[in-house]
Amino acid sequence: MNIENSVKVFGGELRQVTHDSDVLHCTMRFSIFLPPAALAGTTCPVVYWLSGLTCTDENFAQKAGAFRTAAELGLILLIPDTSPRGEGVPDDPEGNYDLGLGAGFYVNATQAPWDKHYQMYDYIVQELPQLLNEHYPNNGKVSIMGHSMGGHGALVIGMRNAQRYTSISAFSPICHPMDCPWGQKAFSNYLGDNQDSWQQYDATWLMQQLDNKRQIPIRIEMGQADPFFQEQLKPYALLNAADESEHNIEFVAHEGYDHSYYFISTFIEAHLQFHHCHLTN
Amino acid sequence: MNIENSVKVFGGELRQVTHDSDVLHCTMRFSIFLPPAALAGTTCPVVYWLSGLTCTDENFAQKAGAFRTAAELGLILLIPDTSPRGEGVPDDPEGNYDLGLGAGFYVNATQAPWDKHYQMYDYIVQELPQLLNEHYPNNGKVSIMGHSMGGHGALVIGMRNAQRYTSISAFSPICHPMDCPWGQKAFSNYLGDNQDSWQQYDATWLMQQLDNKRQIPIRIEMGQADPFFQEQLKPYALLNAADESEHNIEFVAHEGYDHSYYFISTFIEAHLQFHHCHLTN
Repeated sequence: MNIENSVKVFGGELRQVTHDSDVLHCTMRFSIFLPPAALAGTTCPVVYWLSGLTCTDENFAQKAGAFRTAAELGLILLIPDTSPRGEGVPDDPEGNYDLGLGAGFYVNATQAPWDKHYQMYDYIVQELPQLLNEHYPNNGKVSIMGHSMGGHGALVIGMRNAQRYTSISAFSPICHPMDCPWGQKAFSNYLGDNQDSWQQYDATWLMQQLDNKRQIPIRIEMGQADPFFQEQLKPYALLNAADESEHNIEFVAHEGYDHSYYFISTFIEAHLQFHHCHLTN
Repeated sequence: MNIENSVKVFGGELRQVTHDSDVLHCTMRFSIFLPPAALAGTTCPVVYWLSGLTCTDENFAQKAGAFRTAAELGLILLIPDTSPRGEGVPDDPEGNYDLGLGAGFYVNATQAPWDKHYQMYDYIVQELPQLLNEHYPNNGKVSIMGHSMGGHGALVIGMRNAQRYTSISAFSPICHPMDCPWGQKAFSNYLGDNQDSWQQYDATWLMQQLDNKRQIPIRIEMGQADPFFQEQLKPYALLNAADESEHNIEFVAHEGYDHSYYFISTFIEAHLQFHHCHLTN
């Protein structure tokens, strides 16, 4: 683990850290925000932020305006990259933004040429938490959130590991990737054509299976002016599934907001308050 | 005037606008934030933000986290570009970041090849206010702020037009450009070798001339870990001059903070509150 960069913000510290990933077989970088309380030695809870297509660890750090609230509430924020990186890591042969680099979709790829490096599910669920616990003292309470592709990742990872994550939230998530162009392209490449293997990475399918006795708190924020709302994100598929499995989702679709970090910055405080409320109860 | 982009943020609207500049002889772009109150028809005060070296209108909009507070306080934010742009606009022949494109230094150039386009002082002081008043209803009260090169611009423009600007603030400003490498390079290119012509663009020199009966409120924020503090920014030269001219400056140098937008984001709320306080008194 190398600290490449460290900058003071809202009394806390934002670090960019690189490490050799055993799971992804490449060098990875993540950002971590340590609130003033953590720097002073208090063990704090952790919130993961999973970013969307094309992002690195930097977009959220620079644009979401999250550190004011995270500093106030004493939340550690862990911000991973969105795919494996570096020489030898395959990319979309057509160079599109929605497959390959910056588009790992938080799955464990089973198909060549992706399967060696594209193991983002295990990276988020296993390798990063181990690194975190070894190097950054925390109180063991963890929530997960994300945006778009990262909102998909947060929902899938949170629901499949509901004993570990206290709460889940998402901005503009891809709610039913099996049934949208982004998801179908990614899953057919990474997982192959057998759609049974896609289900474990589909928030709507997972919600249909969810035991109604395990009510993990979920909050979803959408912008009604989001150009991807109907074709790619499909939040109503997930809400229908939640209705059927008798699971409550806090859902708001805001008039006029789009898919951008300006939308995220407007409601990030509310999401961090949501997680803080559950993490400290 | 063309609205190229419009996005909802914190209940307000951020627009990117292009227009043909008579003063700069090129097409220019600026960003403007309209708080919810302005959208609802209230005439609001205006705060200009002048950006630093290499920036366009986008850096502040994306990274400063200013819109939450501006929305709450009902402040219009006007965010110009930092130089003329486009084909035929000369750039530093060596391609460095500190001269030419992105480095207009808020002066009216008198030397070839700069003098045709590099008239950023007049652009900020004359052309933009006219455009603003024609197209965006406001209550006529105006303050000015900026960062680094833009902090220099805010101080110089504010002090030379103290009857027009209600208050001035700056993050990490270049306080004495006649006496630092960035300023000397820019001024000798744009204004020539006669240093008498530099004085009107030097905040420290202007402060020495300032009438102590005209106390324009000034706030300056610095980071003690700013790598440019001693060689380029020289805030103590300005503070000394203010002391001699019996002018009060609110000055804070914060332990551990650097020159970045993370620093700005931490204290932007305090600066907007500062301006709001003076604009509404």
